Amino acid sequence: MRDSPARWHHEIELSPAFHDIDPMLVVWHGNYVRYVEIARCALLQQLDYDYPQMQASGYMWPVVDMRMKYVRPIRYGQRVKIHAEIVEWEHRLKIEYRISDAATGEKLTTGYTVQVSVDATTGEMQFVSPKVLFDCLGLAHD
Amino acid sequence: MRDSPARWHHEIELSPAFHDIDPMLVVWHGNYVRYVEIARCALLQQLDYDYPQMQASGYMWPVVDMRMKYVRPIRYGQRVKIHAEIVEWEHRLKIEYRISDAATGEKLTTGYTVQVSVDATTGEMQFVSPKVLFDCLGLAHD
Amino acid sequence: MRDSPARWHHEIELSPAFHDIDPMLVVWHGNYVRYVEIARCALLQQLDYDYPQMQASGYMWPVVDMRMKYVRPIRYGQRVKIHAEIVEWEHRLKIEYRISDAATGEKLTTGYTVQVSVDATTGEMQFVSPKVLFDCLGLAHD
Amino acid sequence: MRDSPARWHHEIELSPAFHDIDPMLVVWHGNYVRYVEIARCALLQQLDYDYPQMQASGYMWPVVDMRMKYVRPIRYGQRVKIHAEIVEWEHRLKIEYRISDAATGEKLTTGYTVQVSVDATTGEMQFVSPKVLFDCLGLAHD
Repeated sequence: MRDSPARWHHEIELSPAFHDIDPMLVVWHGNYVRYVEIARCALLQQLDYDYPQMQASGYMWPVVDMRMKYVRPIRYGQRVKIHAEIVEWEHRLKIEYRISDAATGEKLTTGYTVQVSVDATTGEMQFVSPKVLFDCLGLAHD
Repeated sequence: MRDSPARWHHEIELSPAFHDIDPMLVVWHGNYVRYVEIARCALLQQLDYDYPQMQASGYMWPVVDMRMKYVRPIRYGQRVKIHAEIVEWEHRLKIEYRISDAATGEKLTTGYTVQVSVDATTGEMQFVSPKVLFDCLGLAHD
Repeated sequence: MRDSPARWHHEIELSPAFHDIDPMLVVWHGNYVRYVEIARCALLQQLDYDYPQMQASGYMWPVVDMRMKYVRPIRYGQRVKIHAEIVEWEHRLKIEYRISDAATGEKLTTGYTVQVSVDATTGEMQFVSPKVLFDCLGLAHD
Repeated sequence: MRDSPARWHHEIELSPAFHDIDPMLVVWHGNYVRYVEIARCALLQQLDYDYPQMQASGYMWPVVDMRMKYVRPIRYGQRVKIHAEIVEWEHRLKIEYRISDAATGEKLTTGYTVQVSVDATTGEMQFVSPKVLFDCLGLAHD
């Protein structure tokens, strides 16, 4: 765990739904993208900068890069924790994820997403994150 | 394009469904995992080693690593090509993807998946791909 | 088959994706909602009144009622036809679906969706379908 | 509310995920099938007869009929309750759903699913529900 402010990370718990399970009787790998989005949005809500606030701020934040490493499968009935943490913010918003078994703490998955800010009016990508993000992170912005 | 045998790559075309579109009016980033899976399965069918044949061969091939880089969004009504190509096979199956606009050829997304073989009976991960994969690829296997 | 104009029905073909299959090795029942939407949108495109045109016309058409009857399962590798047909239009848009095996014609699923028009500006539900739908259907509207 | 035993109904709460929202800024109608499945499985877990127990009992329970009536949309950030209740069991398992706003109680959606039991070995549909269901429901079975 990094030494980042408490508000910059967040953890949720969930169990897979039946419709998340594939013929190999494990969660289909694409569904993890949904799981980490749920954790990401919970983290962004904690910062008061989830999708509705992003939109109100005049910026969209599309995901431009995503990686998931699957260490161990998730099965139906298993309870998992999903930890999300902001690790980059100045030029882009990079959030790292760690999925672990809720009972044993065993690491199941790691991954990250990278989002960039886009001016909603002009459609132009911003190469420096807008002031609103720094404000939500509790940072001064020069 | 690499110099790999024709059977090692494959291209499909598709248009996003309405339910693939998110509130930003572009394809939600997690749906690309579905799109590249459709291309991957078409490629594997061409090699006669798609999921049913994998299962019959006694191996499962879970995805253990996945990356997607989103260059430009996909919108409703847009026609896209998805090119899939096998780039590693000896120890693991790595397939690279390139999504482009079907009309202009403009690059929209790149990505890859890595799968490893697991013995379906013992559940043990194989550190060398099983003979059946080499056979399907038209390769000798020492 | 009813005696409706050719433009009022449409048929598509598809095969389930791997990620559509559930632990029982059949297409998960909720995925049929996606399948019939693909057929519905293809039908609406034929009438030049798919979602983008709906939006441009000032109306939204939310689904208010949906039913699906599952007669036989769909399996991975199976090719199916999905027939969509407009059966009501004056007060609401009701479309009926029939999914059948592409090779044998065997009936697999029937269902319908009902959509009503909502004025996009006022948010008010319309109890008579707007003129634009009648135009697209090739009907006079008094 | 019916006069059924407490164990025959169950209520969950959830909020839509960002990926559940469509271009009209409401939950896409097909995602309700996922929501009611989550409620159904929670109800079945309460009866100790969820999918794993069904499988262990030698029966599959495919959904053969499903209906959803959409009264009011669900939006991002909204908290909803999903009530599930068993209303038929002798020949088939019919479960009714009611989705309401968690804050106001306002009705948002009603629906049902019907499942029939199929012998997992022979694949034969059972026209009377198997004894195991009656046991889980706390009923004598003649």
